[in-house]
Formats: sequence, structure tokens, C-alpha cells
Amino acid sequence: MNAEIISVGTELLLGHTVNTDASFVARELAPAGIGLLYACTVGDNPERLRAALRTALGRSDIVVTTGGLGPTGDDLTKETVAAVTGKKLVPDRGSMERIERYFQGRELGETQKKQAWLPEGCTVFPNDFGTAPGCGFRTGDGKLVAMLPGPPSELIPMLKRYVVPFLAGGAGGAIVSRMVHIFGLGEGYVAERIPDLCAGANPTCATYAKEGEMFVRVTAKAEDADRAAGLCGPVVAELRKRFGAFVYGVDVGSLEEAAVFLLAGRRQTVATAESCTGGLLSKRITDIPGSSEVFHLGVTTYANEAKTKLLGVPEETLRKCGAVSPQTARAMAQGVRALAGADFGLGVTGIAGPGGGTPEKPVGLVYLALSDGESVWVREMRGKARKGRAYQRELAASNALDMLRRRILDLGGIEDAAYSCEKRRG
Amino acid sequence: MNAEIISVGTELLLGHTVNTDASFVARELAPAGIGLLYACTVGDNPERLRAALRTALGRSDIVVTTGGLGPTGDDLTKETVAAVTGKKLVPDRGSMERIERYFQGRELGETQKKQAWLPEGCTVFPNDFGTAPGCGFRTGDGKLVAMLPGPPSELIPMLKRYVVPFLAGGAGGAIVSRMVHIFGLGEGYVAERIPDLCAGANPTCATYAKEGEMFVRVTAKAEDADRAAGLCGPVVAELRKRFGAFVYGVDVGSLEEAAVFLLAGRRQTVATAESCTGGLLSKRITDIPGSSEVFHLGVTTYANEAKTKLLGVPEETLRKCGAVSPQTARAMAQGVRALAGADFGLGVTGIAGPGGGTPEKPVGLVYLALSDGESVWVREMRGKARKGRAYQRELAASNALDMLRRRILDLGGIEDAAYSCEKRRG
Repeated sequence: MNAEIISVGTELLLGHTVNTDASFVARELAPAGIGLLYACTVGDNPERLRAALRTALGRSDIVVTTGGLGPTGDDLTKETVAAVTGKKLVPDRGSMERIERYFQGRELGETQKKQAWLPEGCTVFPNDFGTAPGCGFRTGDGKLVAMLPGPPSELIPMLKRYVVPFLAGGAGGAIVSRMVHIFGLGEGYVAERIPDLCAGANPTCATYAKEGEMFVRVTAKAEDADRAAGLCGPVVAELRKRFGAFVYGVDVGSLEEAAVFLLAGRRQTVATAESCTGGLLSKRITDIPGSSEVFHLGVTTYANEAKTKLLGVPEETLRKCGAVSPQTARAMAQGVRALAGADFGLGVTGIAGPGGGTPEKPVGLVYLALSDGESVWVREMRGKARKGRAYQRELAASNALDMLRRRILDLGGIEDAAYSCEKRRG
Repeated sequence: MNAEIISVGTELLLGHTVNTDASFVARELAPAGIGLLYACTVGDNPERLRAALRTALGRSDIVVTTGGLGPTGDDLTKETVAAVTGKKLVPDRGSMERIERYFQGRELGETQKKQAWLPEGCTVFPNDFGTAPGCGFRTGDGKLVAMLPGPPSELIPMLKRYVVPFLAGGAGGAIVSRMVHIFGLGEGYVAERIPDLCAGANPTCATYAKEGEMFVRVTAKAEDADRAAGLCGPVVAELRKRFGAFVYGVDVGSLEEAAVFLLAGRRQTVATAESCTGGLLSKRITDIPGSSEVFHLGVTTYANEAKTKLLGVPEETLRKCGAVSPQTARAMAQGVRALAGADFGLGVTGIAGPGGGTPEKPVGLVYLALSDGESVWVREMRGKARKGRAYQRELAASNALDMLRRRILDLGGIEDAAYSCEKRRG
């Protein structure tokens, strides 16, 4: 079975809102054996939505719409889908009651009530985090249609709980994808070393680059998920073999997830002292539930005075070597480790830009230090200045996490600049 | 002139990568007077890409493709576009030289050289941040085609420098959008108070909700950008009038940008003490270039000991009231303000979840405190538990920034729980 997503919303076509819904839907459908062949976006325009729906119903077994179910005047998805598929909209009592509960007895406007009108005979997808319910039904010629609300906080749980089970009923077979996460090598560099794997038909293999990181996706199809996963296994193992310590995880969310997982397994803790990353490193670590066991303290010492006062970075070091120097990074790592009484201390200082660069110390220059109480390692990162501030900060935080995981796993390469992904990017 | 974006990449259809490129392109085209009517995504599949190209060339004046220009085997956009539009691919010497420079004399693989082959007679868009150049040309029947690389760090600068000027040549008139940013009111609530504005044809008015925030977009068309902006003005003023202090900015990037801007204008500083937000608040503040003038120190005191040791939160307070309490938030704000010698101190403590909730103190409960040295204000936030950890953290940080901007502007409502957007969301 193949599916098509139609995302509805003028804000998506104006670029004010990034369409994350399509990704969420795609990620949930694949393991259910539903392949996505097309994703389209149209504005809050009934005519173009009708055209997109007709095209989709003509070439896909399943059509999923996101957005346009809300209370406002430009929310027209239900009315348009009903018209195209010849369905009648009728009030759904269960949904009406949910909406009334949601508003805790406050007077409901007509715009709010309109959300409880759904295609006759449809399967209702309750909205546990908002007012607009979703719904699914089969068209006269056997196509499956599902309509979902736009806000991710409402769409994601609805997908997992109600939509996938509804759609998977009709699907056969399973697709399983494994993501091999690599930090420190570029897409082109990796791709040139796995042409044999990428030539395979099942599983297929493909490389993707994201700012400062890259991934190899291994995807297999089989009659069920276990068999598909079994087909992925050997290829994943081969990738681990070829790229060794540069592989930081498989199906792991991120470098921070890998680092927190490693620390928790050893009952160890890390403390962070940040300058140019401004709290991003500690934010990324604490993104991970349960990180409170491995992370007790982080400081953002943006000003020199804070570095000296809080972390004991010698004024002389700051004066002679500068705030952006291996010496300062080293002192920050040692200082925050002592301050927190942690097993590891990470220090990050650099020039994120856009301003503040000099010929000797250009934007993108970052020094990262890791202290374990005995040794201190320093990594120098030279990010591409013009890739921008957010990029420099993400890449710096990633380098810090990479140093930590390499130290914990005793992999070596702790001090190696790991930004070749930028040098070698295709 | 209307345009259509075709994003190419199986990773987009598998949901592993969110399609941000389409948003970037859309944002750049609108002010050039190019309206986007459709955006489609297809996989690395020549047949479906051919179909999408034919459909797009049939209904749109301009077709922009993103992705699939790289060195790897599944990068097929150029070849496919050339086939559909009857163009011949020829090596472009300038691009070849750029790629050679990029690799600094290292031996080029065939896969790398392939990137320098472009449609005969096209306008080359140099890639200043990667290897794959983009290009644009006019088809036999007068349609404009532009091909751009996928990585945002390469696509964004290419768009601004080369693509928009190339496309705008053919376009007439201008579209200007103003975004009115509102924090603390829900989409449904706002929509019900501006039906008159939303009924207008030029400018048009539409509401959008994002996690914890909402926006009203005002878009006008006119023969040039100045006239279009002039049409937006009165509607923007009316929105400011109707929603008053809840409007935190117009065309401002974010609450943090508004806060940093206000502090810088008054030469004041803020320091942050975070628990549940784990550095997100200081990260958001330091996302803004120049924030070093208004932000010198932030601490993430994730453990109680750190709260006591670093911020002087009394052990008794932690014991009697708990780490998640108005008293602790208050002590954190006062403590970090004193530690940093800042004008303002912000304290955030709460339960981000998924674990750690109790009947008395459920997940989503956050206490935020603002100290200005004389007074301390405390805001209680009760986020919807099941919206997830990342959401609780973002909303908590937004509440802290909202308290700060309200205090600076003397707007009142500093202690009012500002999450009605969640209560009133349509």
C-alpha cells in the first residue's frame, strides 16, 4: 500500500511554518508497511485542495491530510474532502462532548462547534490534546482517507494511538529503517566507501547529511517487521565495521542521547562550562529524560568576570591567551568539574559570530576541553564562518559530546578536530 | 507569477529529515512578488520526479527544485530535469574549478566531478558553502526552472544571492507579509476577535498557532513592496490596539529577540538560573547576536546541592517547600541576580516530565521568578502534562522571557499565567 500526504495551510506556502507534520506522519507509516510516494502542500484554498485531493486519490491507496480542521474561517479541509469524496458532514456527539469538556463549561462559539461535524460513518480519531478531532473513512472506490489536525502536539499522539492502527489494517508487509549515526565524516567521504552497500536492493542504503552530522539509512522490506529488521542487521554491522569510532550510534536519537546513556550506565556525571554555546550544550544534555542522574550543574559564563569568579579561570590566562584559547577552555573544564564535583567537566569557548572574529581568531574558531580529573584533552574546531551562528554553536556542542563519548568508550581521537563532514561534504 | 517547489529526497518521505528548504524558498519568493501555490515532495525516483515536473510545468510559471544535486548515486535531479525539459548537460568549467578549489588539490572522484555538469546555457548559481552548484534556465515554452542543493547551509545563501534576483526578473508586483507575534492568548480566542480583519481581501489576515505562541499574518499585494507594506500598516496597528500587552512584537524573530532588544536599549543585563529548562533559557537568549552585552552569566542548577551551593537557596526552603516551589524559584532568581551582579535575575524550576510528577506537583507545573533587586514576581505555569518534555521546557522559557519584557515595559501582568493559548486553542 502506498500513501500520499496533503498538508493544508497557507502559512506553509508562505514559509512561516515549517511542515514538520509530514515528517511525523511519514515516520509512523513506514513501519506499518505503508510507503509514502508523494507529499504535497496546498494553501487554505478549496479549489487547489480539491485538485490535490483528486490527484492523490487517483494515484495513491491512502490519502492523509494534515491541518485545516480548526475553528477558524480558513479551516476548510473537512468540507472540501467531504465534497470531493461525496460524504456528508454530520455532528458527532462524542466529539461535541469532548469539546465542551475541553472548554470547561465556557460558552462554545459556532466556530468551535463546527469542529465536531465529521463525515457520516467515519472512524473518529479523538483529539486528546486539543479540540479538533481527526477522522478516517473508506471512499466509494476503496481508498483510505485520514484527516488530522495541524498542531504537532495534537497530531503526533493521534497518529500513534488511532491513525496508524486504522490505516495499518489495510496494509500488507512491513518496512524497517535503521539509522546509522556518524559524527566526524562527510557524506561524500562515506558514500565513496560504501558503493557496494548502496547498490543493494533489499535492504537499500542511502546517506544523508545534516549540519555537522551524517547518517546512513538502511531500509528493508519483508512480510513482517522482524524479518525486515533481520535483513537490515548484517548491513548495519558492516557499516559499524567500516566506520568504527565515527559511528556514535544506531537508531540513537542524537549525540547527547548517546552520551547520557553511556554516563548513566556507568553512574558517572558530567558538568558543563559554556561560553559561545551559551547553554546549548547543557540544554541538549537535559533534553534527554533522566539526564538529571548524570548532569547536576552547568554554567554559561558569557563574560570573562564570570569565568574567573565562578570557574577560577586565572585572569592572567584570559589576559595573555584570551577568552578564546586552549588554556581558557582547559581551565573552564577543570573549574566546572571541581565546582560540580562531577566525574567529567566540559569547557567550550569560541567565536560563534557573526561579529567578534579577528585574522588570528576567526569566527568559527572554538576550543573544547574535557577534564576527567587526571587528564585534560583539548579539541580545536574551525567551523566554516559563513555557515552562521546557530551552526557554529550546534557543531561546537556536538564536538564536546563527541569528546565525552570517545573518552568514556576509550576510543581515542578525543582531540581530533571532527568537522571533516564540512570539508568533505558533497 | 506563481511558483511551485519540488523537493527531492527519499529521506523526506521517510520522515528522517524535515523539509525546511521549502519554507526557506517560500519566504524568499513572496517578497519578490512570486506566490507559491503548491509544494511537492518526491523520493529519489526518476519516474515520479518526471511526473511531478510535468505536472508543475503544466500549472506553474516557475518551478524550483531542492535537493538531489550532490555527488551520490541517488542524486538524480539534474539528469531528470534535463530530460523533461529537453536540455543537454555539459561540464561547466567555473563550477569544476570551484569544486577543485573546495577540495584543496585532493584527488576528485568521478562522483564529485558529476556535480559540475549543468544544463547547456543555464545561469549558474555558485555554491559558496559546498560543492554542488545550482542553476536556472527558461524552458522552450517560457517557464522558469531553478535547481538548488538540499543542505540549508548551501541553499539559503544561494537563494538570497543568486536565485531570487534570477527569478524576480520575470515577476511583477510584490507581496509583503507582516507577522504580529502574540504570547499568552490562543488562536481561537484571537480569531473570534478579528473576524472583520480576517474578512479583508487585501491585506489578508490569518492566525497561526505554534507551541505556546501564536501569530497573526497580515499579507498585502501591490505593485511594489513599499505600497504593499503601506497597506499592511493600519491592520497591524489595529491588531496592536486589540491585543495590547499580549503583542510582544511585529516581525520580531522571537520572545528572546524582543527581550534582548529591550535590555540592550536600556543597557541592562539579565542572569538566568534554570532547573527544568536545563539551559534552554540561556541558550535562547544567546541565540541572539550581541546578547553578550545583556547576558553575562547563566547557571543550570539541576541538582538541589547546586541550587544551595551556587545560588544560596536555603536548604530549609528546599526541604520544606521542595525544589519545585514559588519559594525556590524566588530564591534562584534573587541568587543568580546577586551572583552575576545583573539588573534582573530569572529563576525557573518545575517538572518537565515525563517522570517526576505527583498529584500535588504534576508534570507541567513550573514556577518562574523575576527579581529586579527590589521586587520579586512569581508566575505559576501549568503546562498540559502530555504535551511532552520539550514543549514544557519551551513554554517555561517563553514565560520567563515574557515576564522580563513585561517588567521592562512596565506592562503589568508579570505574574499572570500565560498559557491560555493552550486553554483556548482551537
